[in-house]
Amino acid sequence: MSIEAAIKILQSQFGEQVSLNRSVLEAHGQNEAYFPVTPPDAVVFPNSTAEVSEIVKICAANDCPIIAYGTGTSLEGHQLAVRGGISLDMSNMNEILTVHAEDMDAVVQPGVTREQLNEDLRATGLFFPVDPGANASLGGMTATRASGTTAVRYGTMRENVMALEVVMADGRIIRTGTRARKTSAGYDLTKLFVGSEGTLGIITEITLRLQGQPEAVSAATCSFPDIESAVNTVITTIQMGIPMARIEFVDEMMARGFNLSQGANLPEVPHLFVEFHGSAAGVKEQAETFGEIVTDMGGSDFEWSAKAEDRAALWKMRHNAYYAQKAHRPEMRVQNTDVCVPISRLAEAVKFARAEGERLGLTLSMVGHTGDGNFHCGISVDHEDEAEMAATREFVHNLNKLALELDGTVTGEHGVGIGKMKYMAEEHGDALQVMVDIKKTLDPKNIMNPGKVLPSN
Amino acid sequence: MSIEAAIKILQSQFGEQVSLNRSVLEAHGQNEAYFPVTPPDAVVFPNSTAEVSEIVKICAANDCPIIAYGTGTSLEGHQLAVRGGISLDMSNMNEILTVHAEDMDAVVQPGVTREQLNEDLRATGLFFPVDPGANASLGGMTATRASGTTAVRYGTMRENVMALEVVMADGRIIRTGTRARKTSAGYDLTKLFVGSEGTLGIITEITLRLQGQPEAVSAATCSFPDIESAVNTVITTIQMGIPMARIEFVDEMMARGFNLSQGANLPEVPHLFVEFHGSAAGVKEQAETFGEIVTDMGGSDFEWSAKAEDRAALWKMRHNAYYAQKAHRPEMRVQNTDVCVPISRLAEAVKFARAEGERLGLTLSMVGHTGDGNFHCGISVDHEDEAEMAATREFVHNLNKLALELDGTVTGEHGVGIGKMKYMAEEHGDALQVMVDIKKTLDPKNIMNPGKVLPSN
Repeated sequence: MSIEAAIKILQSQFGEQVSLNRSVLEAHGQNEAYFPVTPPDAVVFPNSTAEVSEIVKICAANDCPIIAYGTGTSLEGHQLAVRGGISLDMSNMNEILTVHAEDMDAVVQPGVTREQLNEDLRATGLFFPVDPGANASLGGMTATRASGTTAVRYGTMRENVMALEVVMADGRIIRTGTRARKTSAGYDLTKLFVGSEGTLGIITEITLRLQGQPEAVSAATCSFPDIESAVNTVITTIQMGIPMARIEFVDEMMARGFNLSQGANLPEVPHLFVEFHGSAAGVKEQAETFGEIVTDMGGSDFEWSAKAEDRAALWKMRHNAYYAQKAHRPEMRVQNTDVCVPISRLAEAVKFARAEGERLGLTLSMVGHTGDGNFHCGISVDHEDEAEMAATREFVHNLNKLALELDGTVTGEHGVGIGKMKYMAEEHGDALQVMVDIKKTLDPKNIMNPGKVLPSN
Repeated sequence: MSIEAAIKILQSQFGEQVSLNRSVLEAHGQNEAYFPVTPPDAVVFPNSTAEVSEIVKICAANDCPIIAYGTGTSLEGHQLAVRGGISLDMSNMNEILTVHAEDMDAVVQPGVTREQLNEDLRATGLFFPVDPGANASLGGMTATRASGTTAVRYGTMRENVMALEVVMADGRIIRTGTRARKTSAGYDLTKLFVGSEGTLGIITEITLRLQGQPEAVSAATCSFPDIESAVNTVITTIQMGIPMARIEFVDEMMARGFNLSQGANLPEVPHLFVEFHGSAAGVKEQAETFGEIVTDMGGSDFEWSAKAEDRAALWKMRHNAYYAQKAHRPEMRVQNTDVCVPISRLAEAVKFARAEGERLGLTLSMVGHTGDGNFHCGISVDHEDEAEMAATREFVHNLNKLALELDGTVTGEHGVGIGKMKYMAEEHGDALQVMVDIKKTLDPKNIMNPGKVLPSN
């Protein structure tokens, strides 16, 4: 009973679907955070749910860890093989199985990426709204409860996953829901697996809620003298019921980064980048009402446009936040962290982050999904400089502690992985033991992505 | 170790908060379904979370069942003491603890009713949207994953409960979340307790998401020659992205019921009753666009109004659906059942229900939350007439089987209770065992509302 034994059986049954190639292993042990490369012992490429079930049974019989792998774009080391075992690469399971246009839902395999799905949906007049920036797999997005710029209007993966097919830790295949829009029939297993980061089972099929493409879209930018006036604009806008599709905060350093990296010409002060969805008259009215709020709150440089090319350029720039941060110190790597707080505490949290960054001598910029109280800090850091690495870790630690003090969470959308595990006890208190009990019940051998999410796991 | 022993200890510790009064016991054993009156052995009225924890510990030590009780308006026998024990009446825990207007959330005790909350919120410009008709307690609404007429726009309790405080089956008190709008920090325990119907723990505090009161509201009614044209109107409306606040189906028998009971003057054909929320110009545009769709789909009698009194009269009538059904056979009781199917199958399901009702000789009318594919059948039935009772049961059974065949659920919003328990195996397949395993882990003595939701419970 060993990892080695499991891999031998897997090789005999799955042949070339099992890779021991060094570069394949290395690629699956990479991460976008500051954790060392931690490759698995093998990478297995299943083609079907039945194969996943078979693979899990072999691993269960041999106590071999299994780590589901999508596109490797997660940010807290979720995919690292910290206890060895196999990486289960879902990229071959990338079929869009059914689009039910009348019901506005789609059933997909976990290897489908969000861009692939939206490409496929183009002719239907529908789209899938959740947009974490990276072209992540929908399986990975489900497992990390991903969200992004449009969550303020359309929700996160929590609201947009209707049902799942899951292979449990003993190989059983279950379905966690129907295609009904809502249900009161028993425990919400769908939501239990959304955000479980591969620690409770392997997601093999996802039923997703879709949205109608809006008749008209307009986008706007505006700038503010300080973070408070930007946040107050957001609070007023949402309280007034303006159905914002996106309302993104960009701090002064990020504005400078956009100027440096992308030839933007932004005043180097806090900004909001926003988008409106609705009828042609509706988005015009929304933009104008929003513009009035901006002025009332002391903002300026308000510009709005209903032109598709202006909008595409704006969101391309926003999605290139990584390169904007990179531009401050081009030779360094960029570390990213996220927290989420009640929106009334957002200005306080952003100002704390700025002050901490300065105190610790870090090159730091921030963007935020302001409507949700969620923001990201990107830090340019020299991985060879131990003092700078330590300062970065201290920054992340202090920011997470603050988020908890403000009745927030240590991660709004990136997930726990190994990076945020040490805050789980403080964030959840006695509820953590309930999570541990559920984990033990559903994965008694602890083979599902062990060493992640729960400190005791 | 017995129920009797538990009650003795409870009396010694909680004095007059424990009632053995026959009429109090009877009242807590009533139900709005066709189940016999099933009173508990005692009713206990806790005043605080600490008291709930203490009561649960006493019950756990003595294997005494505990049934959380809100307003007693649930429809599937959730509150019946089928294994005896105590009814935990939460009506004294009815404080609105905090309203965070800037964050658009509120923290309430479980005994607060939705009308009480909305009354309290009036001056803030905010409201709590979930509206199941009855003035239910928010604890009960959370426990049954309630929804209602506004779910199409604002979601159900699933989307509107941000966090909970829960007393577990051993008396531990946990919190399942923070006030952050979203999180990726670990398993979603909030959603596990929402809809768990008191079988996993006692909800003692609820953090709810609030909405801004819309600047303008308009409402409209229209009629259709058949159910297909009504449903096609709904599908087109939602696909076009018109942000319907309510879109309610009323069948021809319900229209007749409104005429009989409330002096309405509706053509006795299928109707849609709708509501729009937005800016003044926005609701006008929405109403007009919707009116065009109605005409395209063969509907008629389209009338809309932005007057508050017209709207209030319309929804008062709709919420009196029970009395409209009652008017068909005033001396009989009304049984209510709900299923939810993908919207593309809704016309088929409604037509099946109508045909089954006729085949079985039942007096039946239907209303539906059409945007969600959820509908209710109200049946006037003579409880003394065994043949009629049997026909009603057969109708409910066949409707539930059909919902499952159509990839729907046996309950969209009423919950499982004891009434829908027998369909859990068919609806959930192997996932049912996962629910059972979770239940056993969190409530190993099976004292939390035993005999409900899970057939093995």
